[in-house]
Amino acid sequence: MDTIKRINDSLIDAVSVSNTPDCPAKLAEAIDYTVFSGGARIRPKLCMAVAIACKEDDCDVTNAAAIAIELLHCASLIHDDLPCFDNAATRRGKASVHRKFGEPLAVLTGDALIVLAFQVLARHTNGQPARLCHLLKIISDSVGAPNGICAGQAWESEPTVSLAKYQRAKTGALFSAATMAGAAAAGYEPEDWRELGDCIGEAYQVADDIRDVAGDPEKMGKPTGQDAALGRPSACQELGLAGAIKRFKSLMQQAVDSIPECPGADALKMHMLQESERFLPKEIIRSAA
Amino acid sequence: MDTIKRINDSLIDAVSVSNTPDCPAKLAEAIDYTVFSGGARIRPKLCMAVAIACKEDDCDVTNAAAIAIELLHCASLIHDDLPCFDNAATRRGKASVHRKFGEPLAVLTGDALIVLAFQVLARHTNGQPARLCHLLKIISDSVGAPNGICAGQAWESEPTVSLAKYQRAKTGALFSAATMAGAAAAGYEPEDWRELGDCIGEAYQVADDIRDVAGDPEKMGKPTGQDAALGRPSACQELGLAGAIKRFKSLMQQAVDSIPECPGADALKMHMLQESERFLPKEIIRSAA
Repeated sequence: MDTIKRINDSLIDAVSVSNTPDCPAKLAEAIDYTVFSGGARIRPKLCMAVAIACKEDDCDVTNAAAIAIELLHCASLIHDDLPCFDNAATRRGKASVHRKFGEPLAVLTGDALIVLAFQVLARHTNGQPARLCHLLKIISDSVGAPNGICAGQAWESEPTVSLAKYQRAKTGALFSAATMAGAAAAGYEPEDWRELGDCIGEAYQVADDIRDVAGDPEKMGKPTGQDAALGRPSACQELGLAGAIKRFKSLMQQAVDSIPECPGADALKMHMLQESERFLPKEIIRSAA
Repeated sequence: MDTIKRINDSLIDAVSVSNTPDCPAKLAEAIDYTVFSGGARIRPKLCMAVAIACKEDDCDVTNAAAIAIELLHCASLIHDDLPCFDNAATRRGKASVHRKFGEPLAVLTGDALIVLAFQVLARHTNGQPARLCHLLKIISDSVGAPNGICAGQAWESEPTVSLAKYQRAKTGALFSAATMAGAAAAGYEPEDWRELGDCIGEAYQVADDIRDVAGDPEKMGKPTGQDAALGRPSACQELGLAGAIKRFKSLMQQAVDSIPECPGADALKMHMLQESERFLPKEIIRSAA
């Protein structure tokens, strides 16, 4: 089955628990609105690609791991957009959750999606309790304290912060969780797959910085030049545009080289090359040359 | 070991993961401030009392279940106090988390505590993967949608709501989770223990309503008469004070009667009587007579 279809079917199934008269209607609507708002599904695709490379023997477990990661990503976006953080009016070209449903429901929808990630893990890994232990640890650590998304976001409230530590927690941790959970879902040793996720997470962040400098705002659906305008640290500011592109390529190469021995290593390398093009389209590299 | 000491030691251990230089200092401080602000630990005590009655054979698993439930309770209080909900300046006589640490950290501390509950389950149930599956399902369902705390709170955004459904989700669900998780932690069938939690959860809510009418604001550390002043539905409004007291006693009796056969049933019944007195001190019953 097509990976995107697998992800969407599993998300529909996950969200269906709240589509009952037992659930407050606005909460159910806000969950649906958030989860199906056109995300690129980069993290669950990565998780599935690793599980497939490891010759997954239980699709349900892979699906649960991949979907849990995507739900946590969605939750983090809602809370990031709240007035007390970015106060974002839009997300992916649509009204942000708090603008559409009000702030109380935005807080609760984020909370409910965090919890839903763990409900999904509980519901779909029953045949594999040992794997559930690994998955629960990997995935919960990647969003909590001290090294997960919540901690990453909390660095913004500190007077000083190491940029690397901030980005690793806020962005990188969920990418590492994606590769490690993909391996764990297939019964492989997750630690061997950490470097792959680390490299892709950092490459994703560098690509984001590059697109902010050299991307086409029309195509991206959001304004460029924001990092410089807001004085935010970025790979381009640190390395220059050409240096940042070089860094991106080197990280993606390191990612490919880090792939451990597994039945589907070659197909996974192909997936990495496709994702590389998606993170940073060739036209941006050309236009920056 | 004394139950309260067991709970506090386990909470100290759980929170210690964020007491490292890897964690943003203010987030670590806010987590600590929230968790050790003098809560009565009613839910984890109940969870442990059930596990002990079931002759627990693995204290670590009981501790993890009890602490996960308390951390989720703490998280719900922080988010409830936010300006977009109750806008509470104080909690348990101290500044609320958003008043002391600011709104961004209050949102993140709530999120981090939700996640910490699951990190604790992952970390301390490794020897018992089958029990972890039960615990994860029971505990995550009790805080998510459609029947857990998030859903309970979201009913406040709906034009109409069944009071019973609202209170069951917002307050009762975590009590049912406490008794069911206590049983599951000891390897017992959790479903047999649901009625006990349901009754105690409802009794707790009725007692709260009664204290609001007949309690001593000095002793409780918070003003009384709030339900009537704010037009909130309550057991006293519905049944009158004497009727509410009768309802409370009947629920506690039903709770005691529902206790399934287990090695420590008698001690558990004693625990219920002690808790009953804590929920609704005799002096309040006397003063209302």
